[in-house]
Amino acid sequence: MSDLYWPGAERADGLLDDAALLTAMVRVEQAWLDALVETGVAPADAGVTSLAEQVDVADVAAVSRDAEEGGNPVMPLAALLRERTDGEASRWLHRGLTSQDVMDTALVLVLRDALRRVDAELRTQLATLADLAETHRDDPMVGRTLTQHAVPITVGVKVATWITPVADAWDEVDAALGRLALQVGGAAGTMGAAVELTGSSAGALDLVGHAARSLDLPPTTPWHTARSLVTRVGDALVSCTDAWGRLAADVATLSRPEIAELAEGAGGRSSTMPHKSNPVLSVLLRRAALTTPGLGSTLHLAAATAVDERPDGAWHAEWSTLQLLGRRTVVAASQATDLVAGLQVRTERMQQNLAAADGVDAEQRSMSEFTGRAPATTYTGIAGELTDTAIRRARGIVEEGS
Amino acid sequence: MSDLYWPGAERADGLLDDAALLTAMVRVEQAWLDALVETGVAPADAGVTSLAEQVDVADVAAVSRDAEEGGNPVMPLAALLRERTDGEASRWLHRGLTSQDVMDTALVLVLRDALRRVDAELRTQLATLADLAETHRDDPMVGRTLTQHAVPITVGVKVATWITPVADAWDEVDAALGRLALQVGGAAGTMGAAVELTGSSAGALDLVGHAARSLDLPPTTPWHTARSLVTRVGDALVSCTDAWGRLAADVATLSRPEIAELAEGAGGRSSTMPHKSNPVLSVLLRRAALTTPGLGSTLHLAAATAVDERPDGAWHAEWSTLQLLGRRTVVAASQATDLVAGLQVRTERMQQNLAAADGVDAEQRSMSEFTGRAPATTYTGIAGELTDTAIRRARGIVEEGS
Amino acid sequence: MSDLYWPGAERADGLLDDAALLTAMVRVEQAWLDALVETGVAPADAGVTSLAEQVDVADVAAVSRDAEEGGNPVMPLAALLRERTDGEASRWLHRGLTSQDVMDTALVLVLRDALRRVDAELRTQLATLADLAETHRDDPMVGRTLTQHAVPITVGVKVATWITPVADAWDEVDAALGRLALQVGGAAGTMGAAVELTGSSAGALDLVGHAARSLDLPPTTPWHTARSLVTRVGDALVSCTDAWGRLAADVATLSRPEIAELAEGAGGRSSTMPHKSNPVLSVLLRRAALTTPGLGSTLHLAAATAVDERPDGAWHAEWSTLQLLGRRTVVAASQATDLVAGLQVRTERMQQNLAAADGVDAEQRSMSEFTGRAPATTYTGIAGELTDTAIRRARGIVEEGS
Amino acid sequence: MSDLYWPGAERADGLLDDAALLTAMVRVEQAWLDALVETGVAPADAGVTSLAEQVDVADVAAVSRDAEEGGNPVMPLAALLRERTDGEASRWLHRGLTSQDVMDTALVLVLRDALRRVDAELRTQLATLADLAETHRDDPMVGRTLTQHAVPITVGVKVATWITPVADAWDEVDAALGRLALQVGGAAGTMGAAVELTGSSAGALDLVGHAARSLDLPPTTPWHTARSLVTRVGDALVSCTDAWGRLAADVATLSRPEIAELAEGAGGRSSTMPHKSNPVLSVLLRRAALTTPGLGSTLHLAAATAVDERPDGAWHAEWSTLQLLGRRTVVAASQATDLVAGLQVRTERMQQNLAAADGVDAEQRSMSEFTGRAPATTYTGIAGELTDTAIRRARGIVEEGS
Repeated sequence: MSDLYWPGAERADGLLDDAALLTAMVRVEQAWLDALVETGVAPADAGVTSLAEQVDVADVAAVSRDAEEGGNPVMPLAALLRERTDGEASRWLHRGLTSQDVMDTALVLVLRDALRRVDAELRTQLATLADLAETHRDDPMVGRTLTQHAVPITVGVKVATWITPVADAWDEVDAALGRLALQVGGAAGTMGAAVELTGSSAGALDLVGHAARSLDLPPTTPWHTARSLVTRVGDALVSCTDAWGRLAADVATLSRPEIAELAEGAGGRSSTMPHKSNPVLSVLLRRAALTTPGLGSTLHLAAATAVDERPDGAWHAEWSTLQLLGRRTVVAASQATDLVAGLQVRTERMQQNLAAADGVDAEQRSMSEFTGRAPATTYTGIAGELTDTAIRRARGIVEEGS
Repeated sequence: MSDLYWPGAERADGLLDDAALLTAMVRVEQAWLDALVETGVAPADAGVTSLAEQVDVADVAAVSRDAEEGGNPVMPLAALLRERTDGEASRWLHRGLTSQDVMDTALVLVLRDALRRVDAELRTQLATLADLAETHRDDPMVGRTLTQHAVPITVGVKVATWITPVADAWDEVDAALGRLALQVGGAAGTMGAAVELTGSSAGALDLVGHAARSLDLPPTTPWHTARSLVTRVGDALVSCTDAWGRLAADVATLSRPEIAELAEGAGGRSSTMPHKSNPVLSVLLRRAALTTPGLGSTLHLAAATAVDERPDGAWHAEWSTLQLLGRRTVVAASQATDLVAGLQVRTERMQQNLAAADGVDAEQRSMSEFTGRAPATTYTGIAGELTDTAIRRARGIVEEGS
Repeated sequence: MSDLYWPGAERADGLLDDAALLTAMVRVEQAWLDALVETGVAPADAGVTSLAEQVDVADVAAVSRDAEEGGNPVMPLAALLRERTDGEASRWLHRGLTSQDVMDTALVLVLRDALRRVDAELRTQLATLADLAETHRDDPMVGRTLTQHAVPITVGVKVATWITPVADAWDEVDAALGRLALQVGGAAGTMGAAVELTGSSAGALDLVGHAARSLDLPPTTPWHTARSLVTRVGDALVSCTDAWGRLAADVATLSRPEIAELAEGAGGRSSTMPHKSNPVLSVLLRRAALTTPGLGSTLHLAAATAVDERPDGAWHAEWSTLQLLGRRTVVAASQATDLVAGLQVRTERMQQNLAAADGVDAEQRSMSEFTGRAPATTYTGIAGELTDTAIRRARGIVEEGS
Repeated sequence: MSDLYWPGAERADGLLDDAALLTAMVRVEQAWLDALVETGVAPADAGVTSLAEQVDVADVAAVSRDAEEGGNPVMPLAALLRERTDGEASRWLHRGLTSQDVMDTALVLVLRDALRRVDAELRTQLATLADLAETHRDDPMVGRTLTQHAVPITVGVKVATWITPVADAWDEVDAALGRLALQVGGAAGTMGAAVELTGSSAGALDLVGHAARSLDLPPTTPWHTARSLVTRVGDALVSCTDAWGRLAADVATLSRPEIAELAEGAGGRSSTMPHKSNPVLSVLLRRAALTTPGLGSTLHLAAATAVDERPDGAWHAEWSTLQLLGRRTVVAASQATDLVAGLQVRTERMQQNLAAADGVDAEQRSMSEFTGRAPATTYTGIAGELTDTAIRRARGIVEEGS
């Protein structure tokens, strides 16, 4: 999907766009219709296995245009599907569902695709970072705090500080994937219509079980106004851009020409200054990291202002917010993968900077004076152990995910 | 522009989308090329009056795709324009500009269109609300505070409380339009290249003057890292959705069936409950009002983290944020216009609710006991004066804007 | 702690205030000094078991005032402690630590107290809500969607929709408590000084183990720039106010005099209208729910802009944000407990409203026409099952926590 | 006011704290009582000129504690004042006002003090920055874009890019000061009680006029639910921290030891590394700049969710948010003044960095090749003019404000 306002948008092609949502909504309607037929609630001739063939991306415009009247795209889509199917199928379609059931479940489906993509990118990054940490495990560089030279560290431990947030983000993405669930509650979250259709609570729950299996989502109690699933997904996505933001802040800083310890593999060009090699991926990652926290907080606000059995605006505020958050995270995930893959570590320059750093041995000297022992030959503490721990954690996740 | 995630998106068709930004970028390149030729800096045969004919919406995909390499869409667009023009024009195109000059000015142009549209909608709303206040100036209703019945008010003064935020928002939009300006600074904000091209500061400033006139924008000092223009526009747009959010909160609440004092002209349908008339426009306005403050704060964050002569991510974070904020505000503007135009005021029901409101005369009775005077026949205080003041202010803005 | 700007602030007395942080910082210094002595790194006469007696709340003013010079309160506190202890203890105090180690660990300690308090309140609420759901399991009321009457539900399932977010919030608080950890990294996160002092990595890690045990916190790798712990705590706290915001939105709405289905046990007074019974707890909970998401997003921004081995402002932005978020959540927790404890459920009025609700049987009738079967006597679907599930979950958490 | 969580807090001593709000609330009650007596509405013996003597900081605890019952501190304060005054004064106190009138006006008074302080600091900074720009008007340094060397600039134009946002912030603070106004609306914003007391609208408005004059605030129509004043103040305060954030980003970056072009006058100390001179003021300013945008957006959310005649939580969310925003801005204002006053500009190092910057003449050479003319001796374009413009603007504001 082109987007002149968000360079790199194409990296999320096919994810969380209009076509993906349309397809997902149709999948939900199909799963429900299948459930009705499979359980014998609807007659066999209501069975249609090809709702997906009835609509395509060309219908997006009409569905979008007609979405405003009822406030969501499910109603015009259901109308379209009814129009394009015959007889019993047309009669049974969407029976027992409310718009929010279809919309929420469809959003879960498109978010699942995005989360899985992010998950894969995170694991790729962890593999690359683990290798990088290993390669440069003991290479010295100067540690910096509050922008100033502090004490020597190693490249290994520097990379370890990038691995930890990425691994933490993977934990959250993994947990968020585990929280995804079907939404079926009917008009006011009680499945009144489904019970009326099936004649019993057990019958209604059986429908839910069928639909859940066919969408490969766990069934759960309706969550029309209980939006923890949404906020958990949001927080997990923001945690990803947090991790890459932290990485990009280091790369952008250490790529400054006066420091020059890192460089992006293929820096961006300048329109008028051919000598420049801008850390463009870092810049674009920082962009993402500045914008996602506000989106995450919007999801919490929506959760916190949900009222009644289905809310009066809070729910509607989630959709585009989730789309933006999901797509931006996918784009950033892919950019971060490229960034770490191409990252150039200039160990010679690091040694020069370390050697030139005034006072970088001050703490060690003061400790040595304090203990009365001669200073050790290095002063990188447990950097090696920390590096090894981070490498092990990264590789554990890589293997777990595969 | 279809958007299944934001019902009503079509209301902003043509504004702040990819095509609009592409067109605006071309306009900026054209204005600069014209300036170079008009001032004699470039030779007459560099003059091309039809850059706009060289690119169209079909180029969006390629420009978008190639935008990532340099981090912005200006570089691939300039390359495309050079490729499609000949000789001197091709050589002179974009000379003296930096990408940020073109991007910022183009954003200003597309924001101007959006702001003007919002401005017009606000004035339409003010005209409608002024009429509504006049019609119902003295109709009684119960005033509510902290959700409970307080004392009697009038419909007039209720409408006045809607007019004030809308009028305040108009003031801010008007001020924001007045703040829009050209961006020309060159590589690092000093116009080094333009001075080299023209041979003097005066020559460079003359170019700026020409370009400013042709885009109908005031010239100003470069604002590559001084982003008040952006935050002012953002704050103004958020103030608009604040105003409509406040209005929509009242309409959604007073449309509750137990209250039933207001109704949207044509409420939204429900997929399974034909009796329902949902206050869909209010719901969609509340949605917008929940999401824009986070976008506004992102623009402030971007301004606050700008570094160097051109920033390393903060600037890039503004583009999509401005687009979303602008488009959502335009959509909401149009929806708010429809909402007030169709709003049904049920004065009979208001009188019933007022009559049934326990204790709504308690304050007056306590005041009367206090003063020892018989209570006045009404207790609506200066509601009439407040209503008249709001009407006058609304009509003043309507006239001023026309 | 008094706070005229945040009514109810006293409910968080003793938590996350200046005195609590001062005490916690001293505890961290004590634990580290103990570790040095216990491991034999420091001589026995460096042992002082009573640092806590050396400072008290009267020192807050001086420590606060002197905190600006170095940018944090740890440096003046360490200076004060050195001044007030003698000989070896004074020499060994704080050796091997950096300010961030002490500040982060102290924040973890004060957050732990706040989280435990919130945890307890959540469980109390769940117990009360489970009882409420049981008592009113099958009491009918009208379900409302997009502000309008939809279909009948039960009070049981309404309460279930309050239980779920509260239980979800408890899950997050519980997980956040499990994420809390010690911070010890030294100047640049490598424990260089601790290794110099102890002569080995094992020695340094032994110190960490001792300190961790004495503070009852798990040891972990340094997290100076890997701030997932902080964002997880923040997100968990925001999820709490999300849950109470959703509850309060229902109570505020259903307490409106025209609806009158719920009432707070003891509504707030009005200064001039004695008849009013404002839903003050709901109002104050809504206040909290509107303000915490922005604080949560600030923590993510801080995480995302962390740079170098210790950041240049991002870290400093966390402290007050965590304090506000923690204290506001504790206050809201206690208010929510009171709200649910005193909540009045007016079942008669609910029945009246349901009976008066036009079209509330429309969906059932349409389903009945569709199936050709007579409508069932009720239309509350699986409300009973959902209520029971929520009760079970609530009671499971109550028992688990006790 | 000590605050271990926000180093530097003492710089805002006396502003926007509990004592200041208490005093302001009393001033409002006094002004209203005076108005009642002066206009003859209340008898002469209701006149008490010394309400301020009846309460002091020792009452904060009780007022704060009792604030929760009614949801705001005005009610317990009014009760306290009645208790401590006699006869007619006690009877007439607060008559005709609602809590929100007193709270909003008191907030306006304490915000005015904070805004005036910020205004003064901004002007001091502008004077210092103008001098700095003048001193270093033509000193060369390298311009940096997207973290990389671009083209030469001057220190003058660098300082100009700091002046512009500061001057823009001053414009907003000045406008916000001009927007401050009295709040008097009574129970539901119609002044029903005041009209009942005085017998006429004119009488009520006369009271408002008297109170407004005595508080030196313009009267205006009630703004219980029209919160533009609040959002404008908030946006102005955020714009200040934006400006200082941008400045601090440059100082923190250019103070990096590898760059070393700037240094804070007195950098912060490190607990273990005596050689370090941390850019502490920049760090603390960056902290502020990261946290205020979220607070500003909370004010917009509050404005956007205001409902009825007085809102059910949105209003209450403003108080602490305004306090935090105001106090943090005052602290940052004072720190920014110190920062610019002590800033060390290392022109020699700038020249070295410029000389060592590869490719910094690339653009000029390419322009020269393009024009076929020899390159000019400098390439700083209109830097001189831009500097002069900024100096003039800064000095204009300094003079205007004095």
